[in-house]
Amino acid sequence: MLVIGRVSRRMLEASAVNNSNPQKTPGIMSSHSTTVKPVPVIENGVNSDTVPYSDGELLQKVLDIVKKEKLYGKIEDDKSVVDFKHPEELRKLLDLTMCREGCQSRAEVDEVLERVVRHSVRTQHPHFYNQLYGGIDEVGLAGAWILEALNTNQHTYEVGPALVITEFCVIEQMVKLFGWTDGGDGIFCPGESVRPGGSIANMYSMVLARHKLNPAFKRTGMTANDSPLVIFTSDQSHYSISKGAFWLGFGLDNVVPVASDDQGIMHGAALRDAVRKAREEGKKPFYVNATAGTTIPAKGEQLLTKGEQVPAKGEQLPAKFEQLPMKGEQLPMKGEQLPAKGEQLPAKGEQLPAKGEQLPAKFEQLPMKSEQLPMKGEQLPMKGATYLFQQDKFYDVSYDTGDKSIQCGRKGDALKLWLMFKIHGMDVIELRINAAFEASKYLESEVKRREGFELVREGLQCTNVCFWYIPPALRGHTRTPQWWQMLHKVAPLIKERLVLEGTLLIGYQPMTGKNLVNFFRMINTSFPVPTQAHMNFVLDEIERRGQDIEVQSLES
Amino acid sequence: MLVIGRVSRRMLEASAVNNSNPQKTPGIMSSHSTTVKPVPVIENGVNSDTVPYSDGELLQKVLDIVKKEKLYGKIEDDKSVVDFKHPEELRKLLDLTMCREGCQSRAEVDEVLERVVRHSVRTQHPHFYNQLYGGIDEVGLAGAWILEALNTNQHTYEVGPALVITEFCVIEQMVKLFGWTDGGDGIFCPGESVRPGGSIANMYSMVLARHKLNPAFKRTGMTANDSPLVIFTSDQSHYSISKGAFWLGFGLDNVVPVASDDQGIMHGAALRDAVRKAREEGKKPFYVNATAGTTIPAKGEQLLTKGEQVPAKGEQLPAKFEQLPMKGEQLPMKGEQLPAKGEQLPAKGEQLPAKGEQLPAKFEQLPMKSEQLPMKGEQLPMKGATYLFQQDKFYDVSYDTGDKSIQCGRKGDALKLWLMFKIHGMDVIELRINAAFEASKYLESEVKRREGFELVREGLQCTNVCFWYIPPALRGHTRTPQWWQMLHKVAPLIKERLVLEGTLLIGYQPMTGKNLVNFFRMINTSFPVPTQAHMNFVLDEIERRGQDIEVQSLES
Ligand SMILES: Cc1ncc(COP(=O)(O)O)c(C=O)c1O
Ligand SMILES: Cc1ncc(COP(=O)(O)O)c(C=O)c1O
Repeated sequence: MLVIGRVSRRMLEASAVNNSNPQKTPGIMSSHSTTVKPVPVIENGVNSDTVPYSDGELLQKVLDIVKKEKLYGKIEDDKSVVDFKHPEELRKLLDLTMCREGCQSRAEVDEVLERVVRHSVRTQHPHFYNQLYGGIDEVGLAGAWILEALNTNQHTYEVGPALVITEFCVIEQMVKLFGWTDGGDGIFCPGESVRPGGSIANMYSMVLARHKLNPAFKRTGMTANDSPLVIFTSDQSHYSISKGAFWLGFGLDNVVPVASDDQGIMHGAALRDAVRKAREEGKKPFYVNATAGTTIPAKGEQLLTKGEQVPAKGEQLPAKFEQLPMKGEQLPMKGEQLPAKGEQLPAKGEQLPAKGEQLPAKFEQLPMKSEQLPMKGEQLPMKGATYLFQQDKFYDVSYDTGDKSIQCGRKGDALKLWLMFKIHGMDVIELRINAAFEASKYLESEVKRREGFELVREGLQCTNVCFWYIPPALRGHTRTPQWWQMLHKVAPLIKERLVLEGTLLIGYQPMTGKNLVNFFRMINTSFPVPTQAHMNFVLDEIERRGQDIEVQSLES
Repeated sequence: MLVIGRVSRRMLEASAVNNSNPQKTPGIMSSHSTTVKPVPVIENGVNSDTVPYSDGELLQKVLDIVKKEKLYGKIEDDKSVVDFKHPEELRKLLDLTMCREGCQSRAEVDEVLERVVRHSVRTQHPHFYNQLYGGIDEVGLAGAWILEALNTNQHTYEVGPALVITEFCVIEQMVKLFGWTDGGDGIFCPGESVRPGGSIANMYSMVLARHKLNPAFKRTGMTANDSPLVIFTSDQSHYSISKGAFWLGFGLDNVVPVASDDQGIMHGAALRDAVRKAREEGKKPFYVNATAGTTIPAKGEQLLTKGEQVPAKGEQLPAKFEQLPMKGEQLPMKGEQLPAKGEQLPAKGEQLPAKGEQLPAKFEQLPMKSEQLPMKGEQLPMKGATYLFQQDKFYDVSYDTGDKSIQCGRKGDALKLWLMFKIHGMDVIELRINAAFEASKYLESEVKRREGFELVREGLQCTNVCFWYIPPALRGHTRTPQWWQMLHKVAPLIKERLVLEGTLLIGYQPMTGKNLVNFFRMINTSFPVPTQAHMNFVLDEIERRGQDIEVQSLES
């Protein structure tokens, strides 16, 4: 037995105390006996004794909790989505105290793990409807767990061979999907959220466009430029565009909001005017964010092609012009356009798409993943770091793809997507996505049919249904500004009641730019697959908790 | 039974074919019988039948693989670290083909999962020594799995209550650790790598410094500035500084490399000269990257305080001056300075630390985690998005911390760190980290003692030991430039042999700025805990595979 490291006197004392008087912390779900934690020693380089669990049992415990709670998208409808606690209360319930000795028994460890899960929102519940993400399925979670257990990254082939290869495969599929017959490349952008990377993907595309405009900026920086670089985006666009403009030093004043229609889609004529105006003012247009135009109603990226021909060939805009090669319901997420069927998406304006951020992110049924950013044409010239990317390696170093990224390491998120394609196959993905669209269509029709419900806008955009619930007390009145102000308070009030009961988690929000007061916003994602019954439940619940709202409670 | 969505004709046909002629793909580890995959239908919103596994069994399979392969840091020393295959070969072995119907049997699914693991590097192996990261332990992996299963984020309290609360707790600990008695804040920066976020954390700090210099840039952008903004960093600094300068539009020409000593530590006098020179040229100094100065030899952040007083009070540098409040061996990772002991780290230059990127990242024994960026003083004013951060919520919205981030969502990485503190306790973390330092000290002494081995520099920096192996054929010669050029080829050659045998994965690299040819670079991380036996093995292996290298094979 080889023991290195030292065992501190304190540890020995603590352990002696424990032996004479084992500290029992009652566990709630645990059936294990309370074992006393042994003194940690290091044996053959592994100190296995610090957790009162033997080899692999802690992971088994995690699996048991996950199975018991059905966290892989199989939670029953009648369980609550959340057991809400206010922050200060939760601080106490979670027991944040830490001690130098750690947990002393299995029961204590179990309790820590169970508490975290108990006080988390069940995002895998069929009635968890959130702006940013949906549930996960078992294949998705299996992929995530493998990736975590592999604990490697893919900045070089050397450390992540299987990850590099499967990413190549997924990017090839994506490039095909985008209809880029002359090839393309891509990157999975890092993110912190569960469906992350949108913000970073947008920044990549801005940096790409700037680099296309003037590669010299790489050396000189932007202060060498005499005129401001201008970004155009819909007046309803996602806030990550202006955040990116701030972060990257373009400045908020140089983000030009372009007028949009009722659906939040940019007017092509307004865009052209805005570009002309910027030129007259001596500024340099270099980037058009031509995706959705809007996150709130459209959610799905809707192109600004409403009859208007956008300045497509790059003549008017000096730099790369950003355009998504897909629109509305023709999105690959509909399933029918998935590459396996041989159909190709119409890639409008072939010279253009520097950036085609892929939408399926919200439909991939995967846990936490980077956002794909397929790129056409030129790539960002990053900085080769000799300590990571040695060129005198004995294998084909073109597989060391880490230099595409702004970070050193890269997580192998493509693996999850690859496993999804490989194990489930496109048919299943298609089936589920179609079901999400069906459910939204059904929801929209029910909102139109049911008394007291009202669509914010006609016409489904992606799976997004925005609507108001008008409680009986507000019905039949003239819609004065005061009336709208009262309606503005209805959604938050109903939401509060629903959260406290835990039956349903649904978003609401106003659209101040369009002068619209708080409305509910339902986005169906594809797993757990939404059904008509789920849609009925949503409307029933809103009605149940909203029908007794009195005018007094809406005045302030 | 409620069935929605449609079952395609193709699916039915495929299934019929399979029924009459089940496709058997032999699984290597699997003992399951080959079951035919049923036609997927959607029942109560869940289509459970698309994977030939029932409820939770796929996750159990993942756990079985992880346990069998001991991927939680318990791999035996005598297993190989990697079974190397060249990229084109691996493409075939992984079987990248995808079909619309997905996998048809358990055996097929098992084989897909096992193949990915089989062709991955065993980063949890005691003999995996990489620049960027070490292994994980079971508590770390358990935390990661829970986080993936929770599948939520923490941009709002509403979706991640337990995550928000535990992050608060971890940040409080970090602020204490940095000795900021008047408080502070922090953020976990997103990353793609296993130990990620360093690059993004650096960018946050640059954006913070720019904002401090002139908050108006937020609106006007940097083109409104008449003089370039200048960054100072050691001539040996990490390449993420110049990448960040490119990305954020400062420009590579405005990154001033400051002369450093043998250890890569900036000379204070050289820094002062560089700042003066930049001023004389009409440029605006705004940021000093005063961490390590170097990634390669030092790896641990070493302050530039070698006797020289840096321009500490901000008088010389108009903007916030970045400085790490810790140095060398006094790092919290050494354990003795952990906050629980009441000792406080010396926070030098109290006005300064806008950024104190924490080092323990590489010693946390956790899988994939964001990098912590503790911040003192002013925060970045991000853009509130109404669709995410409604202010009319019924709970304390100061717990909706998402607006600190440049991204919409945020993954709850702090949970993993919190579980580590909570379950293991500081004593264990300290024990392991101390063991890593002990092992490096031992390695250094052995390198000095053994014939044919030579330290690149005297003096351990963090756990980093850089050394050459000089094969017998090169010993005893005059060290001409030709001789060094031959030595330059030794490390790559030995590494190739070691990788192909799979016994050891160790990094090498040159330091061209310091005119140093390829050397081995051993960084001990704290789990699996490195022992003297491991260190002996590393040197023995290098010797075993290097001693027969002939002069001819080094000439080219
Ligand atoms: C259109 C669009 N862009 C960007 C984002 C931001 O993504 P992230 O969470 O990665 O910052 C979102 C998030 O919903 C989005 O809808
Ligand atoms: C000092 C320093 N900064 C930044 C980084 C980059 O971190 P990331 O992988 O998150 O890009 C590293 C990585 O090793 C580093 O050592």
